[in-house]
Amino acid sequence: MALIVKKFGGSSVANAERVENVARIVTDEYKKGNGVVVVVSAQGDTTDDLIAKAKEINPNASKREMDMLLSAGEQISISLLAMAIEKMGYPVVSLLGWQAGFHTDSNYTVARIKKVESERLKAELARRNIVVVAGFQGINKYDDVTTLGRGGSDTSAVAIAASLKADRCQIYTDVDGVYTADPRKVKGAIKMEEITYEEMLELATLGAQVLNNRSVEMAKKYNVELEVLSSLENKPGTIVKETVKMEKMLIRGVAADKNVSRISVVGLKDHPGTAFKLFNALGNAKINIDIILQSVGRDGTKDISFTVSADQCKEALAAVEKMQDSLKYSKIVHDETVAKVSIVGTGMETHPGVAAKMFEALYDQNINIQMISTSEIKISVLIDAEDADRATNAVHAAFIG
Amino acid sequence: MALIVKKFGGSSVANAERVENVARIVTDEYKKGNGVVVVVSAQGDTTDDLIAKAKEINPNASKREMDMLLSAGEQISISLLAMAIEKMGYPVVSLLGWQAGFHTDSNYTVARIKKVESERLKAELARRNIVVVAGFQGINKYDDVTTLGRGGSDTSAVAIAASLKADRCQIYTDVDGVYTADPRKVKGAIKMEEITYEEMLELATLGAQVLNNRSVEMAKKYNVELEVLSSLENKPGTIVKETVKMEKMLIRGVAADKNVSRISVVGLKDHPGTAFKLFNALGNAKINIDIILQSVGRDGTKDISFTVSADQCKEALAAVEKMQDSLKYSKIVHDETVAKVSIVGTGMETHPGVAAKMFEALYDQNINIQMISTSEIKISVLIDAEDADRATNAVHAAFIG
Repeated sequence: MALIVKKFGGSSVANAERVENVARIVTDEYKKGNGVVVVVSAQGDTTDDLIAKAKEINPNASKREMDMLLSAGEQISISLLAMAIEKMGYPVVSLLGWQAGFHTDSNYTVARIKKVESERLKAELARRNIVVVAGFQGINKYDDVTTLGRGGSDTSAVAIAASLKADRCQIYTDVDGVYTADPRKVKGAIKMEEITYEEMLELATLGAQVLNNRSVEMAKKYNVELEVLSSLENKPGTIVKETVKMEKMLIRGVAADKNVSRISVVGLKDHPGTAFKLFNALGNAKINIDIILQSVGRDGTKDISFTVSADQCKEALAAVEKMQDSLKYSKIVHDETVAKVSIVGTGMETHPGVAAKMFEALYDQNINIQMISTSEIKISVLIDAEDADRATNAVHAAFIG
Repeated sequence: MALIVKKFGGSSVANAERVENVARIVTDEYKKGNGVVVVVSAQGDTTDDLIAKAKEINPNASKREMDMLLSAGEQISISLLAMAIEKMGYPVVSLLGWQAGFHTDSNYTVARIKKVESERLKAELARRNIVVVAGFQGINKYDDVTTLGRGGSDTSAVAIAASLKADRCQIYTDVDGVYTADPRKVKGAIKMEEITYEEMLELATLGAQVLNNRSVEMAKKYNVELEVLSSLENKPGTIVKETVKMEKMLIRGVAADKNVSRISVVGLKDHPGTAFKLFNALGNAKINIDIILQSVGRDGTKDISFTVSADQCKEALAAVEKMQDSLKYSKIVHDETVAKVSIVGTGMETHPGVAAKMFEALYDQNINIQMISTSEIKISVLIDAEDADRATNAVHAAFIG
């Protein structure tokens, strides 16, 4: 008997028909003789509806009360799914975050899981119950309800799989796996059978948006085998694990991220410590920096350019403006019409020439590269946002076909 | 400093404006320096909406999962009320049933409170927090969520008041107190300043529908002073307590209940044990019997008539039909167009002639009495449903004016 954890997002349980579809997938697994734990998010728009209700009453509600409110969403979806499974004649029990043993820290709305006390889960599985668990939620040391923030249900599922040493953690989505590029934009995009945790992490960060990053990190840490698959089609998805079969493909994926802004601080005095002061200030303002480029200017000055997510552009600009006295730069320039195109693959560590091939593909398309950033398994370039789709297709064609 | 428990029903928190109104009432109390615990039900139609969602998926869902589903309703209302109170600048914390220490038995959907472990409540009050508690819900010994059934939030409020030895438990409704009769139907109906628990119990049973019966029983048992008052008007309501000032009025209230059916079992053999067998069978079928009338028929037979609530009429008939072999009656007759009109008042214990005065009032209106039932503090008559309003007015005029 295998133990399988399955996670379904809000769109997979959006209405009665979808809930019944999930119940079918779950009971098909149970019928094979396997133990099944199902993690679900709130139904479709429930979370947005609840947020709207809160905003009407108090736009500055405390995070504690927001968590109390939002966690009602999964409570509704787990009980409805359990009812659908009951109707099909299978033994089932739904559990809230606290009942399933989710203990978190006290950072309301973005809490982190500290431990999963899995006694209840184990007892229910031992009774041969299908266990439906509310994702996204837990309790802190005060016994107050917390939520895990965006994508938290993925993390809930991986945490349960790790705690129970499950054989596999299946993340059901509206795509049928992880592709070498966004299949809506790149014609030749191929679904991968397998991908490593590290590649998946790079792709997630790069805007592929298939799996939540924290969940992949946790899966890597506890060696939980993940599968990304479709809740609407009954076919294998993409397995995420530690090592994968060697394949011909050097590159595992091409991702484009348009949620990027570039900020340039121009005319900084060329002193030691300038970069430290700048990025320390940005770090204190909780701004995540991605690519950094430093260029030497004229007259003993230099320019520092960096990228941030478009959401944080305003905050970043404000933080830099506050540094005028200390940094004595001549001006700040920013550009919100940029995009980051990246290639990812563990293969590139051992194969030189990957970067050159990428740049050549872009040059052939007459696409200008503004910034470049590399790591062991990825190369990112910053380009004009309007060139993003063309660039992604060109790079994908060069490496994958 | 006094400690006040306030309970608001679903219509009192139905939308943002109503929630803000409740927040005002609550903070006005807090501003006086008093400790305040607020118990709220689910918003307006939330419970009905959730039931509809469940029915669409599984009309025969387990009671455990129904409780899991429905308890989300109060979770939404407590957090929204807490947010409204936060906005007004007061310290507040919302608590779910289990966080507030509500332990119940395991009769899902109709659970009974076993105890309230009030440590958390006391700690929050000691911090001078306004405490908003989800009514209607608790957990059982398995740590599973239970609900208390209709009117359960009243009981939650009284249980908290009893546990904390609160100075008063205020039940806010859409009427401004307890009247001598339904003011929508009886012109001269008077709001009472005070009423005893026992009178309130008789009135509640009789269909006055102001307070849930279990909550009044619990208030009586733990000597919790109740007040029934309006959430829309700022004025004193009706106090419910052990003894009240003597007043001129013999009768405290006149109530009409149209949710009644009469069943007659005709031509029973006149043997000992017949009534026992009949009512034992009805008891086993969980049917509540109200008035009973036995009359001797001809030829060594007798007829037994009784009333049940209209909701249980079908079940009662089915239970009696099953007894045909054992009871050998000649036929069953039932009438669903009946109503019960009752007068209630502790005064009648010491004043003879009350019954005669009631019957006279009905006779003057040419209203036929089908059955009569009396207790120490109440007299009920069964009449045609179409006479109910006229009877109520006539009796009210005779005793109260």
